[in-house]
Amino acid sequence: MNLGFGVVGTGAIGQEHMKRITRKLTGADIVAVTDVNQELAGNIVKELNLNASVHKDDTELINDPNVKAVLVTSWGPAHEGTVLKAIEAGKFVFVEKPLATTSEGCERIVTAEQEQGKRLVQVGFMRRYDSGYLQMKEAIDNNFIGEPLMVRCSHRNPEVGERYTTDMAILDTLIHEIDTLHWLVGDDYKSIQVTYPKKSSRALEHLKDPQIVTFETKSGIIMHAEIFVNCQFGYDIQCEVIGEEGVVKLPEVPSVGYRKDGVRGYKILQDWQHRFNDAFNNEFQDFIDSINQKGEPQGPSSWDGYIASVTGDAGVRAQTSEQVEVIELPDRPDFYKKTKLEESSL
Amino acid sequence: MNLGFGVVGTGAIGQEHMKRITRKLTGADIVAVTDVNQELAGNIVKELNLNASVHKDDTELINDPNVKAVLVTSWGPAHEGTVLKAIEAGKFVFVEKPLATTSEGCERIVTAEQEQGKRLVQVGFMRRYDSGYLQMKEAIDNNFIGEPLMVRCSHRNPEVGERYTTDMAILDTLIHEIDTLHWLVGDDYKSIQVTYPKKSSRALEHLKDPQIVTFETKSGIIMHAEIFVNCQFGYDIQCEVIGEEGVVKLPEVPSVGYRKDGVRGYKILQDWQHRFNDAFNNEFQDFIDSINQKGEPQGPSSWDGYIASVTGDAGVRAQTSEQVEVIELPDRPDFYKKTKLEESSL
Amino acid sequence: MNLGFGVVGTGAIGQEHMKRITRKLTGADIVAVTDVNQELAGNIVKELNLNASVHKDDTELINDPNVKAVLVTSWGPAHEGTVLKAIEAGKFVFVEKPLATTSEGCERIVTAEQEQGKRLVQVGFMRRYDSGYLQMKEAIDNNFIGEPLMVRCSHRNPEVGERYTTDMAILDTLIHEIDTLHWLVGDDYKSIQVTYPKKSSRALEHLKDPQIVTFETKSGIIMHAEIFVNCQFGYDIQCEVIGEEGVVKLPEVPSVGYRKDGVRGYKILQDWQHRFNDAFNNEFQDFIDSINQKGEPQGPSSWDGYIASVTGDAGVRAQTSEQVEVIELPDRPDFYKKTKLEESSL
Amino acid sequence: MNLGFGVVGTGAIGQEHMKRITRKLTGADIVAVTDVNQELAGNIVKELNLNASVHKDDTELINDPNVKAVLVTSWGPAHEGTVLKAIEAGKFVFVEKPLATTSEGCERIVTAEQEQGKRLVQVGFMRRYDSGYLQMKEAIDNNFIGEPLMVRCSHRNPEVGERYTTDMAILDTLIHEIDTLHWLVGDDYKSIQVTYPKKSSRALEHLKDPQIVTFETKSGIIMHAEIFVNCQFGYDIQCEVIGEEGVVKLPEVPSVGYRKDGVRGYKILQDWQHRFNDAFNNEFQDFIDSINQKGEPQGPSSWDGYIASVTGDAGVRAQTSEQVEVIELPDRPDFYKKTKLEESSL
Repeated sequence: MNLGFGVVGTGAIGQEHMKRITRKLTGADIVAVTDVNQELAGNIVKELNLNASVHKDDTELINDPNVKAVLVTSWGPAHEGTVLKAIEAGKFVFVEKPLATTSEGCERIVTAEQEQGKRLVQVGFMRRYDSGYLQMKEAIDNNFIGEPLMVRCSHRNPEVGERYTTDMAILDTLIHEIDTLHWLVGDDYKSIQVTYPKKSSRALEHLKDPQIVTFETKSGIIMHAEIFVNCQFGYDIQCEVIGEEGVVKLPEVPSVGYRKDGVRGYKILQDWQHRFNDAFNNEFQDFIDSINQKGEPQGPSSWDGYIASVTGDAGVRAQTSEQVEVIELPDRPDFYKKTKLEESSL
Repeated sequence: MNLGFGVVGTGAIGQEHMKRITRKLTGADIVAVTDVNQELAGNIVKELNLNASVHKDDTELINDPNVKAVLVTSWGPAHEGTVLKAIEAGKFVFVEKPLATTSEGCERIVTAEQEQGKRLVQVGFMRRYDSGYLQMKEAIDNNFIGEPLMVRCSHRNPEVGERYTTDMAILDTLIHEIDTLHWLVGDDYKSIQVTYPKKSSRALEHLKDPQIVTFETKSGIIMHAEIFVNCQFGYDIQCEVIGEEGVVKLPEVPSVGYRKDGVRGYKILQDWQHRFNDAFNNEFQDFIDSINQKGEPQGPSSWDGYIASVTGDAGVRAQTSEQVEVIELPDRPDFYKKTKLEESSL
Repeated sequence: MNLGFGVVGTGAIGQEHMKRITRKLTGADIVAVTDVNQELAGNIVKELNLNASVHKDDTELINDPNVKAVLVTSWGPAHEGTVLKAIEAGKFVFVEKPLATTSEGCERIVTAEQEQGKRLVQVGFMRRYDSGYLQMKEAIDNNFIGEPLMVRCSHRNPEVGERYTTDMAILDTLIHEIDTLHWLVGDDYKSIQVTYPKKSSRALEHLKDPQIVTFETKSGIIMHAEIFVNCQFGYDIQCEVIGEEGVVKLPEVPSVGYRKDGVRGYKILQDWQHRFNDAFNNEFQDFIDSINQKGEPQGPSSWDGYIASVTGDAGVRAQTSEQVEVIELPDRPDFYKKTKLEESSL
Repeated sequence: MNLGFGVVGTGAIGQEHMKRITRKLTGADIVAVTDVNQELAGNIVKELNLNASVHKDDTELINDPNVKAVLVTSWGPAHEGTVLKAIEAGKFVFVEKPLATTSEGCERIVTAEQEQGKRLVQVGFMRRYDSGYLQMKEAIDNNFIGEPLMVRCSHRNPEVGERYTTDMAILDTLIHEIDTLHWLVGDDYKSIQVTYPKKSSRALEHLKDPQIVTFETKSGIIMHAEIFVNCQFGYDIQCEVIGEEGVVKLPEVPSVGYRKDGVRGYKILQDWQHRFNDAFNNEFQDFIDSINQKGEPQGPSSWDGYIASVTGDAGVRAQTSEQVEVIELPDRPDFYKKTKLEESSL
């Protein structure tokens, strides 16, 4: 039987995921929606031709017996409340980042889920479902490069608008690396530091861009992450792990090779949607399939959301202090150790 | 409403497509099946947990009012009969290659479809849905390289078994290039020639391997296609189009780059399923979406199946004659000119 | 003691080689020059500040006791006469291609050299000294790819002037592939065929461009060589050998990688001098070192010049006949079998 | 007239450079040698068949009127004394790194040279003559990537022996990046920091390996340099400069591409001699040509040697302090500003 989704928040991202579930994936239906803008919610249901109830708020939606899984795509500050109610009701939750806007909020979720006794929550960190990262992870796990010692990565956007602020480099941009890097090497962060190279004249006055973030993990791996959101030339995600016996590197996005006008070249993507479109599909399909087949999600957990929150907060502190900031995290509870992404056979 | 599929032939390929339709794609259901082995057909329905009738033969299945589209995955010699019956009944057809085992059979289908007055048939040439070929096609259509003058491509498999015969190099292997190359450059074939390089000692005694096929198109483009089915090192599909002002080349399959043991390398795929898995999904989804949204399929038509058949026959003659064999094709009827694949926004 | 060079022909190519010998290489001096334009010859001597006699003709130069090696860079029709005189005098000869303008002329040289009893002549086929080709040769000789079965290569120039004629595609352009390909795979040519793809609109009216040349070797290797001298985008030399167990491919010319304006790219060279500059230096240095250290040259021999001539003639016939033209060559005499280029340790 | 070289120190490196000057380069002769081991010096002269005096010490050699340029390839601690004597005598000097073993020593040389009133000294930093670095430099100088903001580079060796100590990572290995990076971006260092990632189990107990060095320049460029001398897989030099509008990256060493055994690969060099062999040749040839044609060397100056010394010392302090160490350098005197490497037309 298909997994019945109730959607909380039918804005742009919510709509995109609704289309994905309806048109690209299998094993799930959207059976209920709600939004602070009730009219919007109703219109989307019509537009997508869904057989779905429109509820007045998240509580009513969660209590709808057809809803087995709640998709939380409301604005960030509302996430925590909805997730906690869904956990209490024993419903599965797919929540877009952030899990909650504060570390304390994330802790409350982690505690509630453990009390419930079962993994219910998956956070929308889709990079773990990207074929390139999965290949890197597999190589590292198979000891292909020996112990990982260093990581270097880049997160580059062609440009950002006026509303993009310096802290968003950590909380909105780097947040994906924060989730991916510790997962990739199977280690926890110990500290974070932010340094500011010479500023690009293409960045607006209020924004520090580029930034370089240095992580150290508990076992001593050093990771340099470049964030450069006005790089001009394209959307460019790079990642390289240097181990005792070798190096693995994220593949370039495949693109037709050409020779023309004195150049041997390849086009670079300009937008992130194309870059991680497959990963988004795989992430949701895995959430649906894991619940349908194994009774619980296996992707990034609320603990991973908690790690991202604590690490992001430390990163923002480090932006101001320009010092090494310690990342204080309790040991991962056994409850969250069983999580293991098996590569979904697409 | 979902498109109701009736499946004729529930062997290995049929099952794979049934899983695809059921688990990976949206907008379609399998509502009926039949197979010469009735027990097998019934078992599959149970195994996939389908709500589908098991019919005694293709005629009964085609007449099932729930069946809107017939998926033909029986063995090759049975294709023509089923396709003709489906056309007569005004049902849509997705038929795996070959459309029919003889050019005359293909002609009968083409004629029947035109008499029916509407495009009903799509042939399973999935490469046109591969992202790399689509990028090449787009570049060529946008005049990025000027007029195409030459094409070179390779179709390499690591090895083949005892049942693979010399003519299969044309009819089973090259058949994909036959469909793709004329589509890519928007031209028709004029002649075909086969030459045999020094034989690989890895090929079995009865098999000529490798083979080089030379096409000339009506406008004079020369295309060299290497077929090498015992190349040992991997499954490797290459294609390069050289135009008046530049060259475009199929991207390599993306793979994690590594440095280890004195080598900077990338793994090569060993099997074709992984290579074209996305293309298979896109092909079927496009068939479903086109019918659901536009009322007819827009992928490779029965005319394309006919071209492949005539060209394949000429290729087999060329294998024996070792001469240039003319490919005699009537002009493409207007009926088949409207076909235009728009890149499906995955 | 340095090898004393006498230069016959002080035009553009002669001057370039003179500068090379004087300024880039060691172990040789230019001790004598001659040219039909005596004034030119004298001026060059002054300009390069050489301590060299200016002779009235090639005979006088060859008889100069200081001349140990003759560099023949006069115009093509004069080559044969000078080379024969030098052989008769027992002098070493480095002759730019062509060895002679007719196959009969080449035969006379081959005969004369054998009668002299010692290898004296090297022909200016510099590609054998290119690091990329040498690496390919080494891999093939070490059986890294098993038996070679197929070769494909391209010789592309951005554009050519009005004086470039259709036959020059064979005699001036392909001549380098003619020498390189048989050397690379250690085999002899059996036949040659020329086909004309659709003509580029960028080529002048009198010129057939591109052309595709197909060689078959005695052991059955099939080689496709594309000649495209108005490709617009750059000077681009490619070569790929497909063997029973693998493929080797000429490296791209190293160039700084960049990311800019939506492109991940590398600049393509526009001129051949840069492409093969190191090969020219290595070729001459090897000629000098081999004579100084081993008493005879070990590079491309007059037999190789003869092969190129016979093959080139067959190629020009094939341009007209558009048929497969047989390449009739006697077996390589033992005298020319000892030739083996050892990679000079630069 | 050829430049007469006097060689001080005829050990391994001295001999290599002597062979280079004699056999690969033009415009110079070795006219005198000396070594603490007089017998060795005499033997080399015989072995290389040189017409060169063997002097009892550097003073006598410098006073030899045939010596116009002194090649200093003795052991490090002896460099300063020889260089100072040569400057006093008005002779040109090519000195292998280090210019002197202390910053004070370098300062004395810099002062002496300025008092002499003319550039006499070139330090053996050959990377500035590597074609890849030169292309990067050219791109940066031409504003191809806008203002440089960040640099990341790697210096990897397959392994090192027991005598390699932690400080040698800075003084022997990183010293090349120290010279190259500031030259590449046209800026001066402000500070240096060393961090130690998790240690490789392949490194010997006494050695910290890998190390990451962070430079900040006066204009704010941040540079990360990885030193990893037990990386196992090969000798691997990488460098990437990220600017406001684009990125440039050192080319990979060209190597035959292959497909075999499931891998698309390229061999990685194992030794540094091959990697920078051309650069060594170009460096010396430029030293010779600049003196012969312009009357003074134009390569890395004693000021560059002084920068390297001060920076290296700060690096070693930073290894111990694990703090940011300030690099205190006076402004570059006008005397050393004229230095500008023009790409030698090889």
